[in-house]
Amino acid sequence: MARARDLGAGVLGTTSPNPPVGAVVLAADGTPAGEGATAPPGGPHAEVVALAQAGERARGGTAVVTLEPCAHTGRTGPCADALLAAGIARVVVAVPEPTELAVGGAERLRAAGVDVELGVEQAEAEDGALAAWLTGVRHRRPHVVWKVAGTLDGRVAAADGSSRWVTGAEARAAVHRLRATCDAVLVGSGTALADDPQLTVRGPDGTDADRQPLRVVLDRRGRLPATARVLDAAAPTLVSAAPGPRELLAQLWERDVRRVLLEGGPTLAAAFLRDGLVDEAVVHLAPKLLGSGAPLVGDLGISAIVDALTLTVVDVTRLGGDVAIRLRPNRHTGAGRTAHGRS
Amino acid sequence: MARARDLGAGVLGTTSPNPPVGAVVLAADGTPAGEGATAPPGGPHAEVVALAQAGERARGGTAVVTLEPCAHTGRTGPCADALLAAGIARVVVAVPEPTELAVGGAERLRAAGVDVELGVEQAEAEDGALAAWLTGVRHRRPHVVWKVAGTLDGRVAAADGSSRWVTGAEARAAVHRLRATCDAVLVGSGTALADDPQLTVRGPDGTDADRQPLRVVLDRRGRLPATARVLDAAAPTLVSAAPGPRELLAQLWERDVRRVLLEGGPTLAAAFLRDGLVDEAVVHLAPKLLGSGAPLVGDLGISAIVDALTLTVVDVTRLGGDVAIRLRPNRHTGAGRTAHGRS
Ligand SMILES: NC(=O)c1ccc[n+]([C@@H]2O[C@H](COP(=O)([O-])OP(=O)(O)OC[C@H]3O[C@@H](n4cnc5c(N)ncnc54)[C@H](OP(=O)(O)O)[C@@H]3O)[C@@H](O)[C@H]2O)c1
Ligand SMILES: NC(=O)c1ccc[n+]([C@@H]2O[C@H](COP(=O)([O-])OP(=O)(O)OC[C@H]3O[C@@H](n4cnc5c(N)ncnc54)[C@H](OP(=O)(O)O)[C@@H]3O)[C@@H](O)[C@H]2O)c1
Repeated sequence: MARARDLGAGVLGTTSPNPPVGAVVLAADGTPAGEGATAPPGGPHAEVVALAQAGERARGGTAVVTLEPCAHTGRTGPCADALLAAGIARVVVAVPEPTELAVGGAERLRAAGVDVELGVEQAEAEDGALAAWLTGVRHRRPHVVWKVAGTLDGRVAAADGSSRWVTGAEARAAVHRLRATCDAVLVGSGTALADDPQLTVRGPDGTDADRQPLRVVLDRRGRLPATARVLDAAAPTLVSAAPGPRELLAQLWERDVRRVLLEGGPTLAAAFLRDGLVDEAVVHLAPKLLGSGAPLVGDLGISAIVDALTLTVVDVTRLGGDVAIRLRPNRHTGAGRTAHGRS
Repeated sequence: MARARDLGAGVLGTTSPNPPVGAVVLAADGTPAGEGATAPPGGPHAEVVALAQAGERARGGTAVVTLEPCAHTGRTGPCADALLAAGIARVVVAVPEPTELAVGGAERLRAAGVDVELGVEQAEAEDGALAAWLTGVRHRRPHVVWKVAGTLDGRVAAADGSSRWVTGAEARAAVHRLRATCDAVLVGSGTALADDPQLTVRGPDGTDADRQPLRVVLDRRGRLPATARVLDAAAPTLVSAAPGPRELLAQLWERDVRRVLLEGGPTLAAAFLRDGLVDEAVVHLAPKLLGSGAPLVGDLGISAIVDALTLTVVDVTRLGGDVAIRLRPNRHTGAGRTAHGRS
């Protein structure tokens, strides 16, 4: 299952609006016979890729999948049928299918005599590559990852506005890798005007990656100049005048965006946090002190310590000389089945 | 040597103005025969404690010490002579004695035919329990450890002034353990007035520790009320009107303080940082966001990112739900021998 999760994580950012699923097929004797991950929309699902690789060796074997095989015909045929056709004897699943549309795969397989186990290492799979897609299923909006780079004393820029570079090369490279896992990268007009960022995914050698997330600037007053680098030809760009975070996320949802990287300044970060629209936070802290300058996050309307927004630390790592902290906001989100599936 | 370092670390905060040294004596056959650490001022040095424990087994054996054995007679006799009298054949030392007064131990031992090795794992020993004492030797002032507890966005208190509690129980317990390793604990009048802290070392059960560091309040305008908890009978207190950090440290030096915990608010922290008088920083970050409130550190007179005070991360650990980062400011300190030794 760990390998299946890794396979899913490897295609995060390339499958939306479909879930990034990973699958491993073991032959009847237990040896690995094939593996696969969800192809870009319109392409085969993970199980189908893994079955094709396994060929005849799949017969009597086991399929290990991070998400329950679908039972409906979207742009591709039902995966449950593909597993039956290949003669798979056992299916091990992490996350049961949460959408009404695609559900029924386990049932169909069991009816055909296949041994199906659901919920194996489910939490790990839900917190991994599938997290963003599950946010979409549960809340009908894209999953938001807030990334911010600040000093130890919580400043994202110095008093004179300078912010190049707060963090070191390793942390900046990690941001490019993070962008590559997202469908869209978002800033406010303040950041676009102050820093004129290009917001593309670039490799260590500075060249643009083949696949670029949608660049989004939230600019209600039309202040973004036509010369802004975010408007260059390197990637598509949406300049939105959505009145608030929720409306913007609705626009992005319609464009099949399921995972957004919020790289905006303190104003936009505060707006998303106030509305409870941050699902993950990635905070890069540079071991520096400024004593003044723009704060990590703008006013949240909080005046007492007991009312602070609380998060849970997921992990802490060192990135070159900097410290990276990944967190999840603490709040109660209602999970459950919805009518909205994958295609 | 690792064991000797641990022994020295175990008495950090109890030996000033003497260095917290650790010593291990191995018998001629290499088996451990005795160990010791510096006793409080007036008591025996580490080598003498370890030799006493080893007794006759020290003859022909090896002494492993974090600091070069002294060759002068202070409140106790020279350790070099004690090692000779015990018949030690080999002495392994981490840090060569840096003071003119106590130097000569290695020479005296070598002259008597003892095999002496200096500089073994010296950097580890210098960065460990001996760091504060070495700061004193080099700069003739106490070593300053700045401890601060803040939110992820760099706030030490909320807008309404509330700061109880920013961090969780584990982090607060760690602060008490940190206090116990210091000779003095320091705040500004701002913190004393806002939080009315007691500044004592308390155990997990809330009871006062036997040994208490000196409590120090920097209060130039005499605003501290007689009812302040920091003035209670639980520990000695110095209320100082020193005009600045440097003058205060001189006052503390005269009182044999060698390691100070700066727990003051943003104003005092900024004053020490501006004067280059912070030797170590311990930052406890709670996974919380406030968006407003008192900053981790006050104005440093820095306006551009390239002028930020830079530090180096020593280690990052998790303390309950919080994150603890230990750092050292990056600056060039002149090391060297001075005329000031230990007694
Ligand atoms: N170190 C880092 O990680 C990092 C990252 C980003 C930015 N920064 C720094 O942050 C500073 C810019 O801060 P900022 O706060 O101005 O940037 P920002 O949050 O990116 O942009 C703020 C602007 O977004 C627009 N906006 C659109 N919809 C909004 C909504 N619902 N709520 C609030 N604002 C909305 C507003 O302009 P309209 O009203 O015109 O729409 C607002 O002025 C710069 O100094 C930059 O260097 C640092
Ligand atoms: N979370 C934490 O770790 C933590 C720790 C401490 C404080 N706090 C919070 O910090 C806030 C208090 O902040 P603060 O900045 O007022 O506290 P502070 O730095 O402890 O005290 C500031 C006061 O120190 C005095 N002072 C003496 N010598 C000074 C010098 N050379 N330079 C500057 N000041 C000197 C000044 O008063 P005089 O001019 O009268 O001498 C000044 O007003 C409170 O909200 C408290 O809760 C939080």
